Amino acid sequence: MTVYQATASAPVNIACIKYWGKRDTKLILPTNSSLSVTLDQDHLRSTTTSRADPSFQKDRLWLNGDEEEIKDGGRMATCIKEMKALRRQLEDKDPSLPKISGYPVHICSRNNFPTAAGLASSASGFAALVASLAALYQLPTDASRLSLIARQGSGSACRSLFGGFVAWQMGERPDGSDSYAVQVAPREHWPDIHALICVVSDDKKGTSSTSGMQRTVETSTLLQHRIKHVVPERMRAISEAILARDFDAFARITMQDSNQFHAVALDTDPPIFYMNDVSRAIIALIVEYNRVAIANGGKLRAAYTYDAGPNAVIYAPKENIKEIVELIVKYFPQADAFKDPFGVFDGKGVTGKVVEGFNEAVAKPFGVGAVKNLIHTRVGDGPRTLGAEESLLGENGLPKRI
Amino acid sequence: MTVYQATASAPVNIACIKYWGKRDTKLILPTNSSLSVTLDQDHLRSTTTSRADPSFQKDRLWLNGDEEEIKDGGRMATCIKEMKALRRQLEDKDPSLPKISGYPVHICSRNNFPTAAGLASSASGFAALVASLAALYQLPTDASRLSLIARQGSGSACRSLFGGFVAWQMGERPDGSDSYAVQVAPREHWPDIHALICVVSDDKKGTSSTSGMQRTVETSTLLQHRIKHVVPERMRAISEAILARDFDAFARITMQDSNQFHAVALDTDPPIFYMNDVSRAIIALIVEYNRVAIANGGKLRAAYTYDAGPNAVIYAPKENIKEIVELIVKYFPQADAFKDPFGVFDGKGVTGKVVEGFNEAVAKPFGVGAVKNLIHTRVGDGPRTLGAEESLLGENGLPKRI
Repeated sequence: MTVYQATASAPVNIACIKYWGKRDTKLILPTNSSLSVTLDQDHLRSTTTSRADPSFQKDRLWLNGDEEEIKDGGRMATCIKEMKALRRQLEDKDPSLPKISGYPVHICSRNNFPTAAGLASSASGFAALVASLAALYQLPTDASRLSLIARQGSGSACRSLFGGFVAWQMGERPDGSDSYAVQVAPREHWPDIHALICVVSDDKKGTSSTSGMQRTVETSTLLQHRIKHVVPERMRAISEAILARDFDAFARITMQDSNQFHAVALDTDPPIFYMNDVSRAIIALIVEYNRVAIANGGKLRAAYTYDAGPNAVIYAPKENIKEIVELIVKYFPQADAFKDPFGVFDGKGVTGKVVEGFNEAVAKPFGVGAVKNLIHTRVGDGPRTLGAEESLLGENGLPKRI
Repeated sequence: MTVYQATASAPVNIACIKYWGKRDTKLILPTNSSLSVTLDQDHLRSTTTSRADPSFQKDRLWLNGDEEEIKDGGRMATCIKEMKALRRQLEDKDPSLPKISGYPVHICSRNNFPTAAGLASSASGFAALVASLAALYQLPTDASRLSLIARQGSGSACRSLFGGFVAWQMGERPDGSDSYAVQVAPREHWPDIHALICVVSDDKKGTSSTSGMQRTVETSTLLQHRIKHVVPERMRAISEAILARDFDAFARITMQDSNQFHAVALDTDPPIFYMNDVSRAIIALIVEYNRVAIANGGKLRAAYTYDAGPNAVIYAPKENIKEIVELIVKYFPQADAFKDPFGVFDGKGVTGKVVEGFNEAVAKPFGVGAVKNLIHTRVGDGPRTLGAEESLLGENGLPKRI
């Protein structure tokens, strides 16, 4: 008997031009375009196995080992329904294809990073879901087409359907058919873009981005100006910077847009804060690190960006990562040794030395644990279809024990 | 021999609609109008004695006991020069007046609150300077006219020339002659507006407001929208709220404008942060305190506002101050007992009890010292001319030893 099953993995992406605000909350249509860097799946990924089987009773889903309810009309159900519809179109055109679109599916998904890390897992998760169903259903590979469906699971998931540098075009149509992701450039165009994720401890439960962004749409008197007048120009300028591999321009726009996203969050009533004192201190360090470079006749060497939480993601050319890790570790001592996946320390270990001319008074050192963890990664590729040996479902169609 | 000397005190003011950005840095002309509440001089004030004497060698100034240089062309020199010019006009018109405008002056000024409290002392300081010189020179009392001069010392000082609720009209003329303060309503109109100042400890040296606001003017892509489209409407609405004694509207606009000021500071490149985790926690407490009131069918009961630093000023009708102190002290334990100048605790002391229905999880308690001090005050009157017994200068024309 044929087993209809496929496994795929999908990457995390971190936006440089931020998505904040929906014009349609059901279809997840944004109030502005956004742009992100896809991070390397070798380090951070969601992996999903999907199986279609006539013996299954209903669609079921397991996330990190626990079964989650697939609510009627919910985001998960919408994605599965849309993927089945694409399969049905194929089956209708080619009667020789097995009619698996009518079978219930079992879906099992895992992230290789802890949810507690505070990294948005919904983007990689919905991208992996869509990618695994696309492989299961043997749909023609059109990542922009698939991104339309992932978008309805979680807006930023649409950008995880591509590797490299990815724009989510907001579109104009009410049905959302022109609101999808496109690749600005593949990772191979600019593989030197690395990222250091600073996982920041937070006591405070933050406002969810789903409710937070709508409160901003309803109450901020600055958001509309951002949407209409600031973002379009930034989208153009950062795409140009990426195509020209101009890190200075890329970094400047990335930091400005992170700041502006948090500015409109703060302009919300009641105000929304995602960054805390640790986040602010990391910004102060990067600002000073860049100041020294510019004072020495150079250009920007690093760019911070913050999503809807206190974690910093620092983008930089690979050659600067060592200095940045030294800097971060000096102010935020780590319980564990720095995992050095790219060998930038040449086996020698972190010394806590800062660059010459750095004004150490711009921040005060924090205690161990203020930054819980440092993850060094880089720009990565898009979803991968994996072999059967990577399946998360056992022969019985239920999650394998791990 | 006649001694030409006068002493005056002037109040602190805290803005509800914030001043941030100059269109002329020399004349101190703002990019938008602003509005403040004058606080009671019984609690916070600057006191200044000015003496004109032909035997003095030159103009001299002492601030809190230390002599400060009066720099040629500096803000202090400008204020003194302009006040002498007003005196000269009087002397020219009325030859019977003593010609004291040509005498050098000695000026001695003191604040009754520590500079370390982080309360902007330049507003009350320049207002007291101008008020004492106006008394010395026996100028006709036109506070708006005097506010034109105080403005050139420190922008927000112009608002300290009035008691009650005060607007600084930005004006349009390049020479600044229409950029002055006017009284929206005297304290007697709405004496029930009280204020609780939470003095917040800060490790970090903040960006000075003078340099910070110009960086915002140069780099924020949101500021112009605020200036042109948001502030004018808020000025109108909050003036109306004050005249109607509508605390709900007053509080809402005050909080929104504090948030937006900090939003445009954050939208600056590099970003400017004045609030820290303690400031954020106080906001969370006030938001929750108001939420409970509204859930019970009521209206806003308190409004936070933050200037260019981490200190919170909480405006509220007097009857709510007790609950607010209870709330703040519960989360920010105090080393010293609450000084209760208005007797709101009836001698019974703070219990740390919160209002019913309050979700205590909105913030976590901090350690002693995170909020260093609580000052309870209220809306107050404008500058006062004091008697000779209050003089800060001795008979020899030098500061009295204190």
